[in-house]
Amino acid sequence: MGLIVQKYGGTSVANIERIQAVAERVIKAVKDGNDVVVVVSAMSGETNRLIALAKEIDPEPAAREMDVLVSTGEQVTIALLSMALHSLGQEAVSFTGPQVRILTDSAHGKARILDIDQQKIDSQLKAGKVVVVAGFQGQDEHGNITTLGRGGSDTSAVALAAALKAAECQIYTDVDGVYTTDPRVEPNARRLDTITFEEMLEMASLGAKVLQIRSVEFAGKYNVPLRVLSSFTEGSGTLITFEDDKMEQPVISGIAFNRDEAKLTLVGVPDKPGVASDILSPIGEANIEIDMIIQNVGADGTTDFTFTVHRNDYDKAKAILVDIANKLGAREVSGDKKIVKVSVVGVGMRSHAGVASTMFKALGSEGINIQMISTSEIKISVVVEEKYLELTVRTLHDCFGLEQE
Amino acid sequence: MGLIVQKYGGTSVANIERIQAVAERVIKAVKDGNDVVVVVSAMSGETNRLIALAKEIDPEPAAREMDVLVSTGEQVTIALLSMALHSLGQEAVSFTGPQVRILTDSAHGKARILDIDQQKIDSQLKAGKVVVVAGFQGQDEHGNITTLGRGGSDTSAVALAAALKAAECQIYTDVDGVYTTDPRVEPNARRLDTITFEEMLEMASLGAKVLQIRSVEFAGKYNVPLRVLSSFTEGSGTLITFEDDKMEQPVISGIAFNRDEAKLTLVGVPDKPGVASDILSPIGEANIEIDMIIQNVGADGTTDFTFTVHRNDYDKAKAILVDIANKLGAREVSGDKKIVKVSVVGVGMRSHAGVASTMFKALGSEGINIQMISTSEIKISVVVEEKYLELTVRTLHDCFGLEQE
Repeated sequence: MGLIVQKYGGTSVANIERIQAVAERVIKAVKDGNDVVVVVSAMSGETNRLIALAKEIDPEPAAREMDVLVSTGEQVTIALLSMALHSLGQEAVSFTGPQVRILTDSAHGKARILDIDQQKIDSQLKAGKVVVVAGFQGQDEHGNITTLGRGGSDTSAVALAAALKAAECQIYTDVDGVYTTDPRVEPNARRLDTITFEEMLEMASLGAKVLQIRSVEFAGKYNVPLRVLSSFTEGSGTLITFEDDKMEQPVISGIAFNRDEAKLTLVGVPDKPGVASDILSPIGEANIEIDMIIQNVGADGTTDFTFTVHRNDYDKAKAILVDIANKLGAREVSGDKKIVKVSVVGVGMRSHAGVASTMFKALGSEGINIQMISTSEIKISVVVEEKYLELTVRTLHDCFGLEQE
Repeated sequence: MGLIVQKYGGTSVANIERIQAVAERVIKAVKDGNDVVVVVSAMSGETNRLIALAKEIDPEPAAREMDVLVSTGEQVTIALLSMALHSLGQEAVSFTGPQVRILTDSAHGKARILDIDQQKIDSQLKAGKVVVVAGFQGQDEHGNITTLGRGGSDTSAVALAAALKAAECQIYTDVDGVYTTDPRVEPNARRLDTITFEEMLEMASLGAKVLQIRSVEFAGKYNVPLRVLSSFTEGSGTLITFEDDKMEQPVISGIAFNRDEAKLTLVGVPDKPGVASDILSPIGEANIEIDMIIQNVGADGTTDFTFTVHRNDYDKAKAILVDIANKLGAREVSGDKKIVKVSVVGVGMRSHAGVASTMFKALGSEGINIQMISTSEIKISVVVEEKYLELTVRTLHDCFGLEQE
């Protein structure tokens, strides 16, 4: 195949036994004729252990020193995995982020990769070695150790794959691929052989958290073929593709959902320019993240303004909204904590009329009342009462025929 | 005072509470008007934990990867100590060995320091910061992480002190200085305010293991004033000086002893050139370290050849010696595991006749039989029966008046 970059997360390297299993998987890829670069996370639990030590000293430790501290987690794993490869007869060499030289900006704890020096890795690959790289870390132009933030190992892997022009970037995780929906809700859910980057982004942000969104964006930007596989079972996983890889896309690829939503409505707001900003600015300032926003055309000079937030933020947001209602002279504030969002996602819906009507008809025939609707290019989301979540997911999975290949 | 380098070992940074105590001690030195560079070891137990992980994978892991692994121990400490300094209002910055750039050769696990780049540390000191450096580690010319071997943090501290032209290198440990002898054997033992480098070397190699021998040699070579202090109590410790710092040296500075010796004698060896080498080469090849060697003038064409080894090596050495005795036609092999070595050490003995006679007279008057005698420039060692150890030490401590200032 050529050069592949494999990434193993914390649970895949949680103990010596699993590190040895990873070594065997890496060697299999070498025996299949590939050059292999492996990116690893800290052994699961290790990062939290280190953070706990720091918090004992200072609840808000300096970000620079935090990076010096937590970057040791991945450094331990690269050494142990290299030893495991050696002990199975495979030559290997480890590199920390700074050693590769993965150059980042200086935003400690959430640094962005600026450049990667391929030369060191290239020469080791040429010498027949597996190269084991610490994920999640790099250094800034002054030689300070930086980290990319939690989950940043995925981003490291994709960035390395892009820099090295790898044939594929394989993300090993504890699930064996991306499913049409959560199998715990819909037993007929099916693993997708492929999914487009755009769909993956919509699925990930909607709660199907197989990959870090940032790494998917990165892969899309640099045209890196990304594959999600299981560390624990065999199987080809799910390949994340570019839209034009296939002539014909299925209309709908999957059903995503989010249980933790709550909705808030400001009823009878004066319908005039600037009112949306007057409502949302104080919410944003309180660090409350807003998901869906809906405002319909008004009547008699007023309109209703509705948005959804994470359920944990509901009370805080409602208190702020009551205050805003008084200032704006709105009629009332209403809300509901027992709602969920369900979305159908598929790049095919762009070229197919009727997805929305199929969806709404199916829900209607099951007696499920739709409280809110929001659409994007490749997604239709509805808000329904919490008790209808499972029924909604199964009804949509069925009406779009997702159980069939 | 100027610039001081402080070094804290594993027990001094064993937990968060102790790291905070170290931070307070460092701040005290800053408030006294010093620039401070702190060198730290891994939290005690951490290095062993990491080594155990590696051994689970491979009983003999690659030395390069071992260095990548164990160097994380000190990296954790530098981050935590910097955080502790911050939380007490002291600006501080941490550097790993590679970040400072402590350049070493490529002998992983036992690397030697070749060069230190002062520039980075200098500029941080100028900015009013305490600089916290990971001991025990560096990098080679190819950017590989190296370690100096166990106890190497002392060497790191001395080397940094030399490179930065520090006024003093302070080694904080769990003893409060160098004593005239072990206080557990002689309750009248007294802490020395000063000791010469040469005496310190003799004391250290004889079992008074306060400092790593290598770091003492290093300090002597680069004229770095070295002070041993306790991390846990107040006090000015013991300053290790150059001989010519004082006009008048005390004749004897201390009594060192070693409980773990055993002696072996080859009786009636043909007295001819090359015989010493014939005896010692096979012992050396078996990785047995030899301490004292004594061969007296022979009679009737034969001589007796005696040496001491660590008690654990006695049986192994004896078996080899029996073999050698046959080859050389020696009369017999005798030995004794129940012996100890006691030494009086002092640079003053060079210019004072009569130290030996005072020593032997005192021992004789207590009825202690001397089995072997060996002398160097600043040391006289005797081997006596194990049961006389305490009596020998106390007798010598008393006869040289060491309890008095």
